[in-house]
Amino acid sequence: MRIGLDVMGGDHAPDEILKGGLAALDGLAADDRLVLVGDRRVIEEGMAERGIHDSRVEIVATTEVIGMDDSPVEAVRNRKGSSIVVMYQMASPKAKDRLDAVISAGNTGACVSAAQMHMRRLPNVHRPGIAVTVPTFSGPVVLIDVGANIEPKPHHLAQYGVMGDVYSRRILGIERPRVALMNVGGEEQKGTSDMKEARDLLRSAEGMNFIGYIEGRSVFDGGADVVITDGVVGNVMIKLAEGLAGGIFKALAHEVFAIDPELAVRLEPVVKSLYAKHDYHEY
Amino acid sequence: MRIGLDVMGGDHAPDEILKGGLAALDGLAADDRLVLVGDRRVIEEGMAERGIHDSRVEIVATTEVIGMDDSPVEAVRNRKGSSIVVMYQMASPKAKDRLDAVISAGNTGACVSAAQMHMRRLPNVHRPGIAVTVPTFSGPVVLIDVGANIEPKPHHLAQYGVMGDVYSRRILGIERPRVALMNVGGEEQKGTSDMKEARDLLRSAEGMNFIGYIEGRSVFDGGADVVITDGVVGNVMIKLAEGLAGGIFKALAHEVFAIDPELAVRLEPVVKSLYAKHDYHEY
Repeated sequence: MRIGLDVMGGDHAPDEILKGGLAALDGLAADDRLVLVGDRRVIEEGMAERGIHDSRVEIVATTEVIGMDDSPVEAVRNRKGSSIVVMYQMASPKAKDRLDAVISAGNTGACVSAAQMHMRRLPNVHRPGIAVTVPTFSGPVVLIDVGANIEPKPHHLAQYGVMGDVYSRRILGIERPRVALMNVGGEEQKGTSDMKEARDLLRSAEGMNFIGYIEGRSVFDGGADVVITDGVVGNVMIKLAEGLAGGIFKALAHEVFAIDPELAVRLEPVVKSLYAKHDYHEY
Repeated sequence: MRIGLDVMGGDHAPDEILKGGLAALDGLAADDRLVLVGDRRVIEEGMAERGIHDSRVEIVATTEVIGMDDSPVEAVRNRKGSSIVVMYQMASPKAKDRLDAVISAGNTGACVSAAQMHMRRLPNVHRPGIAVTVPTFSGPVVLIDVGANIEPKPHHLAQYGVMGDVYSRRILGIERPRVALMNVGGEEQKGTSDMKEARDLLRSAEGMNFIGYIEGRSVFDGGADVVITDGVVGNVMIKLAEGLAGGIFKALAHEVFAIDPELAVRLEPVVKSLYAKHDYHEY
């Protein structure tokens, strides 16, 4: 497999991205290829520092970068030499030695836009959606979309359901995923007219185990295996969950040190075990 | 002050509601009145059980109930004898012995609809919004709206900002609240056209300390004192936070018992202190 990695994109790029990419070499097969796209000097120096000489690594040198604050569509149009545009071009059906997978932590909008332009969409999929696998207390939940499409039409939401269902079955190995639509309540009359229309489309989707609406309360509690939502709600959900979970453990640590400092040492293996069970890498 | 309480509304009504109402008597002044609206027998029996004879309690007997699953507008129109409709009528500007405040944990849509019909809105406020005070690691945050209005116009969002600002200053005593608009990113070009329009309206609001967009990650981390959002996002946010926080403590307890059961006893005061600091009752 040929995997592209945008070394220049992300909040802590390029160092953390490169570090992650090189760490992944341990998990790749002998005939896999890791294509690092970005500043050649940064990449070569980073590899030299770590003493990595690996024939599976290819470098594609780029000179431009799309920043997190750049306007996506303009940036993709004007910065043809950026790591994002160059990498997605290499994933185009028309590309020579086409990439099989591309990874970027950079400007989301630019990635979505470059992906649409160069990789194209699957037949009958009208809009891309970003799916994340959220670790919950009762297993992994696929949340789609978390920000590719902030004003989806009902049929986009229904298509997210189909894609999330396939992802849950094929990648997570869940036999008959329960697919639910995010809403403000479980009752039939709740939600916008778009949500109701998406619900009706999902109900009529063949072979899908659509279980209806789900509320925010049930997402971490095993209410569904696939949760469909629009890009605004999905984006707020993952960021809120990240902030809240981090905050709870920080507050707990603070409290432990204030009340019973000795406890901290004994609590460490407990928290570690908890993290290990619910962290992404398990899936 | 005359306070109305809908004893019949809520997931654990009427028992838990009545229990809460009667517990509140300790905090009320001698000339306050608690008007319990609901099934007379249930209320009288509940008070007798607890040996409560308090001249500050008035009972307004009703015979109908609006359920959580009922269609709000129809229910308010057709069930004139329900606790919700009767209570909100007593808060009408035209009512004799008008209620100064009304409390219900019942059907949200029915409450909003009955409130609009009987209590009317403040001058220049076009749509009601539900504000909640969310306990965070850096103090209380006013989140508005959490479900009254699932398809707000930009000027509704701007008005929520004004109301949230007043609430934060007057009720929570925050001198110059930082008011922020919920979005998928902090950058100017992020969000729907409605969000951008709301942002521009908020920027031009006189005397308000509007700080721009806020992301989900920052809500629990002191990013703002007032967070404005539409009813769908806000509703998902509070329910998600509730489910996640509860889940984390449940998972932590489970892990403690599995790995180091003795620890549970020592952890109890820590968790209690944490809850005490971040629970609603502090505000």
